[in-house]
Amino acid sequence: MNNHDELEKLIDEKQFQLLRSGVTEVNSADVAAMIEKLSAEKAVLLFRVLPKDYAAEVFADLYSDTQKSLIERLSDAEIFDVIEELFLDDAVDFIEEMPATIANKVLNRATKETRERINRFLKYPENSAGTKMTVEYINLKKDMTVAEAFDRIRNVGSTIETIYTCYVTDSMRMLKGVVTVKDLLLSNLEQVIGDIMDTNLIITHTDTDQEEVARLFEKYDLLNIPVTDSENRLVGIITVDDVIDVVQEEATEDFQIMAAMTPSDKPYLKTNVARLAKNRITWLIFLMVAAMITGGILETFEEAIAAVPLLVVFIPMLMDTGGNSGAQSSTMIIRGIALDEIKPRDIIKIIWKETRVGLLVGGILSGINFLRIWLTYGSNTDVFRVAFVVSSTLLFTVILANVVGGILPLIAKKCKIDPAVMAAPLITTVVDASSLLVFFTIAKILLKI
Amino acid sequence: MNNHDELEKLIDEKQFQLLRSGVTEVNSADVAAMIEKLSAEKAVLLFRVLPKDYAAEVFADLYSDTQKSLIERLSDAEIFDVIEELFLDDAVDFIEEMPATIANKVLNRATKETRERINRFLKYPENSAGTKMTVEYINLKKDMTVAEAFDRIRNVGSTIETIYTCYVTDSMRMLKGVVTVKDLLLSNLEQVIGDIMDTNLIITHTDTDQEEVARLFEKYDLLNIPVTDSENRLVGIITVDDVIDVVQEEATEDFQIMAAMTPSDKPYLKTNVARLAKNRITWLIFLMVAAMITGGILETFEEAIAAVPLLVVFIPMLMDTGGNSGAQSSTMIIRGIALDEIKPRDIIKIIWKETRVGLLVGGILSGINFLRIWLTYGSNTDVFRVAFVVSSTLLFTVILANVVGGILPLIAKKCKIDPAVMAAPLITTVVDASSLLVFFTIAKILLKI
Repeated sequence: MNNHDELEKLIDEKQFQLLRSGVTEVNSADVAAMIEKLSAEKAVLLFRVLPKDYAAEVFADLYSDTQKSLIERLSDAEIFDVIEELFLDDAVDFIEEMPATIANKVLNRATKETRERINRFLKYPENSAGTKMTVEYINLKKDMTVAEAFDRIRNVGSTIETIYTCYVTDSMRMLKGVVTVKDLLLSNLEQVIGDIMDTNLIITHTDTDQEEVARLFEKYDLLNIPVTDSENRLVGIITVDDVIDVVQEEATEDFQIMAAMTPSDKPYLKTNVARLAKNRITWLIFLMVAAMITGGILETFEEAIAAVPLLVVFIPMLMDTGGNSGAQSSTMIIRGIALDEIKPRDIIKIIWKETRVGLLVGGILSGINFLRIWLTYGSNTDVFRVAFVVSSTLLFTVILANVVGGILPLIAKKCKIDPAVMAAPLITTVVDASSLLVFFTIAKILLKI
Repeated sequence: MNNHDELEKLIDEKQFQLLRSGVTEVNSADVAAMIEKLSAEKAVLLFRVLPKDYAAEVFADLYSDTQKSLIERLSDAEIFDVIEELFLDDAVDFIEEMPATIANKVLNRATKETRERINRFLKYPENSAGTKMTVEYINLKKDMTVAEAFDRIRNVGSTIETIYTCYVTDSMRMLKGVVTVKDLLLSNLEQVIGDIMDTNLIITHTDTDQEEVARLFEKYDLLNIPVTDSENRLVGIITVDDVIDVVQEEATEDFQIMAAMTPSDKPYLKTNVARLAKNRITWLIFLMVAAMITGGILETFEEAIAAVPLLVVFIPMLMDTGGNSGAQSSTMIIRGIALDEIKPRDIIKIIWKETRVGLLVGGILSGINFLRIWLTYGSNTDVFRVAFVVSSTLLFTVILANVVGGILPLIAKKCKIDPAVMAAPLITTVVDASSLLVFFTIAKILLKI
């Protein structure tokens, strides 16, 4: 069934029986991938042959524009099946991505209960634990026996995604402990849940940021985490499969911000030209204007340039090396902050470390430069002076770039700005201006121009 | 027990009984974090009071330099306990990070069986599924009943980390199917495993790259995946908690490569100055030499610069904007390749898309530039000409940067080079040279110099 042509043939020939039996043997993620490649009309035909619950799984795996095109072609009854069969967290993700008209159309087809649950979710802050959680989990009471717990799991387990961690709550829905199916299996059937449950809980809250939640999973190797509301009542759980997506999303966001773009989690090939341009233009304009100011510095040294035009030859090397050094240190610090390995209070340690790295790296680069200038332009006093001006500026630039790249992300973090903003593009611009200023100032003094 | 001072006080006062009871109530990851902050001597004292199996969990969570310092201070009997209690995958990770002398010392203390198992693991290629897998999993036979399966889980479950997916193998250790504890719980005790097991398997191989394995987890929302050897026998499983670490490691590696560094997964604050400098210097030298060549281009236009020194003012703006545009497109493509959303065969689509984005973005930037030059330098024909030279070079530079940034990562991927190498630093250097060449060529023609 992995053969795309064969699949299209079955659709064209309306061999729906064959199609259904073939396709349900394939993993839902693979069926979703097949649907992405079909035309909208064929996609609907294929989608319609899928059994209800399977169709919902496939639907959850589609990109939002494909979901939209399907919804536009499905009947009201079919939309009802989709929205009711979807796991709540998938339904919320889907509704969030739809334009308001489609979202309303879908919500109006759903039962009142589903609609209310989805609407409650939509009120949580963007990218918070609340939006990532599912409300389907196994709930136990302290005074149940292990045998009763197994009965409960057997009763409700078939409609619930994650059953391996069970949550023990009191009558006020306060979380009292957790017990895993492993604990249950390794206990006697007569034992009481209250005696075997683990009360050493790792909990998150509905408005905690998803990045923070992912960190808890990483640190404690969790499979799921309970989510409580502002009154500390258990309202849902987040499962590890959603956390991997969060980790990737957050990394993608950082990559984009660090390359001076407005972040977007839409895949590149699915994003149109206007949107790509829009995500890029704001920062480009800002940085271009900043670079014009750097250019303005050169204007004040027009006479020096006219006197020794050779100086201009070193501008690209100074600018690029400064930019690259700044990119290196800022990347290390931004990533360290994202992984929670570096905190704003480490700032002194980082300045000291980057200064020494800058001295070492800048020293080596300056040495190479000095030799290269001497070898290229011959060994007279004038060349020696130029070589000295270039090499000392280079050393200064590398140290400055390292330190600025090290501290700006920390300052941003302290001011609750995303540290990723303080990446190469911004740092390059800051460092460029100062390095050119230093370059021509030293040049004017040493070369007496 | 979270209070660091209180903890140190208990250690200083040698209140080992109190320490032991207090510390084992804390999560092992938190105890590891406490140990990281203690002096080596105190760390050993705290480590020694931990119960054996708990100590192994804590040990697995320590950074490798702390592991090393502990091992150096533990007795042979204590080292034996650690290595024997560690889960095999954690033991392998630990041994891999140790210098050869320490690794040998530890392996010599272990039982022959443990030593052989670890040595077998060490032979798998770096970052392959083989190095990430654990050999502890639940193995069932096709003709077992559900009741027998539960018995087996109860018998071996306490020493195994992951029990929720059970693997059904034949006498040749060939994997025939998987059955989850959920399936078992929802089946009758008399049912036969062969009838309820899932034969639609997602499998990986010992030498598959860990990034590929992570993709399977993401795509199919797995909790674990079976790993087979070259003869298709089941040899281990990989669990989802290790996959989150893989995803973060791979992202960190890409961040570092994209900022022109030799990647290293050692945390920044734990890396010494010499190592940080070493990771950064190679690329900096290479890129500096490349930028010198760009500078050489300027040398050939020395006369033009002497005639119209104003031209120099626009160099930083052209270089920075080209670099930033290239960073944007290359980041989108590199990340798209990493997430498996973009493939080398998409190259034509990407050239076409980036050309249009470049036209749009470059057009807007050029317009702003043109206006700015006119407003700053007055509106005579000479200024108009300069403005035209700068703006058209800018448009050319942005389109070129977008297209080069779009295709170089794809070409790298095709040539089995890491696409992340083709990021901002390299692209900036390539684009700089051509944009300066175009700038002065157009200038010479239009300004007749």
